Amino acid sequence: MTSFTVRGFRAAGVHCGLKVDDKDIAFIASDRPCAAAGVFTTNHVKAAPVLLDEAVIRGGGAVRAVVANAGNANACTGEQGMRDAQAMAAAAASMIGCEPGEVLVLSTGVIGVPMPMEHVRHGIETAAGQLEADGWRDAALAIMTTDTYPKLACVHTDAGYSIGGIAKGAGMIAPNMATMLAVIVTDAAVPQPALQAMLKRAADHSFNRIVVDGDMSTNDTVLLLANGASGVEVGENDAKFYAALETVCTTLAQELVRNAEGATKFVTLHITGAESVEAARAVGNAIATSPLCKTAFYGADPNWGRIIAAAGRAGVTVDAGRMALSLLDAEGVEAIRLFEQGGPTNYDEPAAIALMSGEAWGFRLDLGLGEAETTIWTCDLSHDYVTINGHYRT
Amino acid sequence: MTSFTVRGFRAAGVHCGLKVDDKDIAFIASDRPCAAAGVFTTNHVKAAPVLLDEAVIRGGGAVRAVVANAGNANACTGEQGMRDAQAMAAAAASMIGCEPGEVLVLSTGVIGVPMPMEHVRHGIETAAGQLEADGWRDAALAIMTTDTYPKLACVHTDAGYSIGGIAKGAGMIAPNMATMLAVIVTDAAVPQPALQAMLKRAADHSFNRIVVDGDMSTNDTVLLLANGASGVEVGENDAKFYAALETVCTTLAQELVRNAEGATKFVTLHITGAESVEAARAVGNAIATSPLCKTAFYGADPNWGRIIAAAGRAGVTVDAGRMALSLLDAEGVEAIRLFEQGGPTNYDEPAAIALMSGEAWGFRLDLGLGEAETTIWTCDLSHDYVTINGHYRT
Repeated sequence: MTSFTVRGFRAAGVHCGLKVDDKDIAFIASDRPCAAAGVFTTNHVKAAPVLLDEAVIRGGGAVRAVVANAGNANACTGEQGMRDAQAMAAAAASMIGCEPGEVLVLSTGVIGVPMPMEHVRHGIETAAGQLEADGWRDAALAIMTTDTYPKLACVHTDAGYSIGGIAKGAGMIAPNMATMLAVIVTDAAVPQPALQAMLKRAADHSFNRIVVDGDMSTNDTVLLLANGASGVEVGENDAKFYAALETVCTTLAQELVRNAEGATKFVTLHITGAESVEAARAVGNAIATSPLCKTAFYGADPNWGRIIAAAGRAGVTVDAGRMALSLLDAEGVEAIRLFEQGGPTNYDEPAAIALMSGEAWGFRLDLGLGEAETTIWTCDLSHDYVTINGHYRT
Repeated sequence: MTSFTVRGFRAAGVHCGLKVDDKDIAFIASDRPCAAAGVFTTNHVKAAPVLLDEAVIRGGGAVRAVVANAGNANACTGEQGMRDAQAMAAAAASMIGCEPGEVLVLSTGVIGVPMPMEHVRHGIETAAGQLEADGWRDAALAIMTTDTYPKLACVHTDAGYSIGGIAKGAGMIAPNMATMLAVIVTDAAVPQPALQAMLKRAADHSFNRIVVDGDMSTNDTVLLLANGASGVEVGENDAKFYAALETVCTTLAQELVRNAEGATKFVTLHITGAESVEAARAVGNAIATSPLCKTAFYGADPNWGRIIAAAGRAGVTVDAGRMALSLLDAEGVEAIRLFEQGGPTNYDEPAAIALMSGEAWGFRLDLGLGEAETTIWTCDLSHDYVTINGHYRT
């Protein structure tokens, strides 16, 4: 990876006791006020930090810092949970000399357990003393739960600004956890409405295209802070900035799938020939959440019947007689046509099994109905997924 | 089980070569014309026998027989598939001396493989020669795929008529298969429109309330034949007939869940306090299809946070602060309150684990929003489910 520094931002990650041994408090601070954007879980049950951050972002004011913890989701914790989230913001604010309302809060971990605030306050103080321009790896480590490695991505553009981000948690899958978090920062100067619009669009093309198991957490949050330290101004229709942002988001999103619980395969689903993007997405999500399809991915079984059947129950009109299904190789190139004109081709079964035995491959399903398409990234459903989630707390 | 005979009906099950060793052709015949009703998969990709049966039922004419096979779903088989389904009906009709249009056809098994019609024709002839009034167990065996035991249910009413049924396949879960089939017969005399209305209602209260993994097959079919041999006439509002029919359907449906692939737990979800039955069902289905909830069921983990989070993403408005969640014992009695007023109770964790270690138990989730409720029966997601479905064809 390219070096990860974004002017004006410093980061740190420390251990305070929420996890047994590992880092569990991350602190990210800007030396000047940032425009801030966020996208949040659509779960009706939202954790306290989500409600706090939504209010800050909606208010449109400047942000100076993000404080995050792993090991406790601060979800389903009632009014005390909101007081604790506010106390985390206040503690961070006092360390860098800003207002509590200028601090965003992220939490991930066990649901329904009160935050051990004494540990957390101490962790925030410790982290504040270790803030460094290159502290991002420590911060990424400190937000991990069942992740097995930290996720970071950084792009330095030739326009003079950088965009960097960290993320954790394989989407919707972490056990007893609440789950997907990402913080992205840039030293470009971007007005808040433009920042929000571009983050929403980029998230729609990255984090909203990954599926692990279809479960959606109470804490999912993606934040984007822009502090303007590069002196370069960017507007909503800046194609270069958007492209760099989407690259960072997509890189992080795909890493979440690769490191999903128990995942052994990274599977790209390219749905084409749909009547609308929504229809393409419905078909792709039906396949990506189907336990039958996902166990076949795991077993390297070119079981096209399960794909066709999942497409058939996606809630949109499809016609098997118009579908064409192909296996894609690791580069996304069509390798083996499995199904067309209502029935299977005379394909080479051992070759298909060999391709699917690799770590990364995909399917293209052409619905033959229109011009719309989408891409979804997903993984398989393995024995280890069941082990991790069936016996998490024992 | 009570004896399984329904006046005027005979059944048989034989081996013709679709499965390696086991029975794979079932034949059910009535000695007189039957009113016939059916409910079918809503998958947009429908197998040829489903299309054939839908046309027969829609035509409203009399039915004399059902011929069924396991080992081949006759799905995604194009025009040849429809010709084969018609040929199966014609072969059965010639054996009992009726019109091909008076025979219904069911198929279950592998998708996309042409029917080996020579074997099938021979099997239909053999089965026709073995039709017996007490041949239902053989018929139930002959429609099994990954089921490990046959499913039968029969009720003899004090009104003088009987209702009996057979079923196979654990709902939406069978691998590479197309899946849930049931045939129910009665010697009551029931007009076709009344029969259809009562079957739809009973299926809605039984087969449509079971969830294994949320996958829906291309072949799901429930048929109900009424031949009037008892001489007892029944109308649409006959409460006794409907109750007996619902008992048969519910018994069969619950057996499908108990014998679901890899299932080790039978879990009843009682969703109460909903604003509508649809909302209750949406919440119940979100929990029943959640891999996180289902692996927690498997691990006997009273992980209430996963239940609350699944309810939160069910697509209907809920409020965690109004929810109450309890574990139910094997009799459906509230045993342990886990969550209320937005947070966990001080419940006895070892007692909750002990209860969930049993083979049958449940949850009651009161949404605290209204008066509507529903019950859904589901199972856990185990290592064996992954083994069975990940390596089915290898």
